[in-house]
Amino acid sequence: MGKNLEVVVLLDFYGQLLTDKQREVLELYYNEDLSLAEIAQNTGSITRQGVRDSIKRGEQALFGMEEKLGLVAKMADIKSNMQSIQQFAEEIRRQNKQYCQNSKIERCAVQIEQIALSTEE
Amino acid sequence: MGKNLEVVVLLDFYGQLLTDKQREVLELYYNEDLSLAEIAQNTGSITRQGVRDSIKRGEQALFGMEEKLGLVAKMADIKSNMQSIQQFAEEIRRQNKQYCQNSKIERCAVQIEQIALSTEE
Repeated sequence: MGKNLEVVVLLDFYGQLLTDKQREVLELYYNEDLSLAEIAQNTGSITRQGVRDSIKRGEQALFGMEEKLGLVAKMADIKSNMQSIQQFAEEIRRQNKQYCQNSKIERCAVQIEQIALSTEE
Repeated sequence: MGKNLEVVVLLDFYGQLLTDKQREVLELYYNEDLSLAEIAQNTGSITRQGVRDSIKRGEQALFGMEEKLGLVAKMADIKSNMQSIQQFAEEIRRQNKQYCQNSKIERCAVQIEQIALSTEE
């Protein structure tokens, strides 16, 4: 069974909407990197095959949520936009330093960089 | 039964995760502004009291999702950040126009404004 790294992101985003059991199993598999057999031992109550089914169901639930809400894609867009804003602000500071030395422009550009950086996280 | 306008925002955000029935009833009540009796008539299958219960359950589901994911609050923060960025970009343009007339600074600041505006929406 291959690991789909997209699941890590979806789990971080929507994990709280899964059942406790689904979330636990997915976290052990994706974040703790335990094998199916180890997860079966750890959680006590389910077989190796049960773990596999539980992972599949949890993954499907996560993909279904993203298909309906699209928030991971939206957040990726926002992150990309924040990086563009930081680049434009950097260019403003470079131009300003070289040609204008206006302290207010410098301060505003730094503020923009900081807000964009904090929004991106 | 008072209408909670926060529900309109939550419905727009998380509505797709509700059952079809819950979403339909909430949309008729909050977006179409139908009365409980009208909704009962419209949907055919449920009584006025059933509609009231269905609305309550749907609202609780929406509030539960926001409590777990906090994405409406996060989006509100992002919107506020984008407005701050637009203000700083505007101030850069003002300073630049008055003291520097650097065309590259102007272009970068306009780009920042446009990206922030599109991210806010």
